[in-house]
Amino acid sequence: MGLQIFGVPGLPEIVPGADLATMIVEAAATAGTPLANDDVVVVTSKIVSKAENRLVELAGIVPSPFAVAWSAEWEKDPAVTELVLRESKRIVRQLGPVLITETRHGFVCANSGIDQSSSGAHGRVVLLPIDSDRSARTIRESFARAGVDAAVIISDTFGRAWREGQTDIAIGIAGMQPIHSYIGQVDPHGHEFRVQALCTADELAGAAELVKGNVSRVPVAVIRGHQWTHDDTATIAPVLRDQSRDLFR
Amino acid sequence: MGLQIFGVPGLPEIVPGADLATMIVEAAATAGTPLANDDVVVVTSKIVSKAENRLVELAGIVPSPFAVAWSAEWEKDPAVTELVLRESKRIVRQLGPVLITETRHGFVCANSGIDQSSSGAHGRVVLLPIDSDRSARTIRESFARAGVDAAVIISDTFGRAWREGQTDIAIGIAGMQPIHSYIGQVDPHGHEFRVQALCTADELAGAAELVKGNVSRVPVAVIRGHQWTHDDTATIAPVLRDQSRDLFR
Repeated sequence: MGLQIFGVPGLPEIVPGADLATMIVEAAATAGTPLANDDVVVVTSKIVSKAENRLVELAGIVPSPFAVAWSAEWEKDPAVTELVLRESKRIVRQLGPVLITETRHGFVCANSGIDQSSSGAHGRVVLLPIDSDRSARTIRESFARAGVDAAVIISDTFGRAWREGQTDIAIGIAGMQPIHSYIGQVDPHGHEFRVQALCTADELAGAAELVKGNVSRVPVAVIRGHQWTHDDTATIAPVLRDQSRDLFR
Repeated sequence: MGLQIFGVPGLPEIVPGADLATMIVEAAATAGTPLANDDVVVVTSKIVSKAENRLVELAGIVPSPFAVAWSAEWEKDPAVTELVLRESKRIVRQLGPVLITETRHGFVCANSGIDQSSSGAHGRVVLLPIDSDRSARTIRESFARAGVDAAVIISDTFGRAWREGQTDIAIGIAGMQPIHSYIGQVDPHGHEFRVQALCTADELAGAAELVKGNVSRVPVAVIRGHQWTHDDTATIAPVLRDQSRDLFR
């Protein structure tokens, strides 16, 4: 009845080339909560990026004159600014030291999602996975080879318009559609639903954050009891609002 | 270990004056899952509004000339448009038939959060609670009188910038702060956190939606196992980004 959400503790520090899926299967089993069919496994993008070697040494980056000038004005590291710009396809807002960009994937977030806090060493940053749906699919396929049919969500921590505080949202998905549509259904009073579609992937990612925390280094959580329809064509694309429909870009 | 999230089934149709908190306590007990200390109880705003008689008969509304003209252009009900405008303190975006407003509380959402789908009768709409923090506090105090020390979140289903699909978020809170701050803490590598503050209230509201659904009419969910610090001064205000800090308003 209902949902259970628990973290997967005991994962080692992730290094490039790590077999993340196998590590998760083993850590969950060791913790006494082995993965099971129909679980939704939410994996923090940071460890995916590390396993995929999306680490960049800042010393090797030659910033553009724009990155140098802007960084000097706002006391930023010009190499980081350069990477933020390289990872973006557009600057959505630029005000003071804040850069809100649209990443090459189509995510709108601060600093192209580049993480300076937890790269394992100073002078290095972590970029988002190149293709976070592919990352999710790879993990899901590896789970399947271990005998577990689980959906996978890659999550990151993003800010929002209008509201303070960040939340974890989905940036990649495999096995289930990210949006649950009510279109055409009617409520108990015979009205069509005002709510047309819920982004359950983002709700699942946020729910997972509640047990992962950001301090305790539990970068994977399992959600058990969520009803989902198996769909191996699923990607995060339906969540990315097309610019033509977007009033805030 | 971890979180449990379950719906509270069996609530009757809520009518004005209903003692919502007592109904929730009784329904949870009847379902075999009585409320317990330290639970977080997430209540859909719609039933709060109904209990507080925030229902409006459209027949009694005289729309302004602007509401009449705009509604004619976009095939909207002018009485609903009038209410949307009355409930707002500003129009944030207006494009085609879409009205994104800032409500008098400070929430940015479509149509001032007015719900046309589930008012219990055609020709009636449901407005947001007048003071959703007060609504949460009232429910929390009533739980306390029933012997249960639970935090309360009032949730609604809002759209977002940039991303398709709506999610449930918090519009009122009692007993716990809505934002968990990491400011000043350092990660395992000695860096200060890039993530400064997480809006756990929104993550809890979204997690609750996963078991409430919008079709099955389970408007209340209980989250058990979440660690929260008791704070009876808490309100949703820290989540509302001040306009001076907002790049999208």
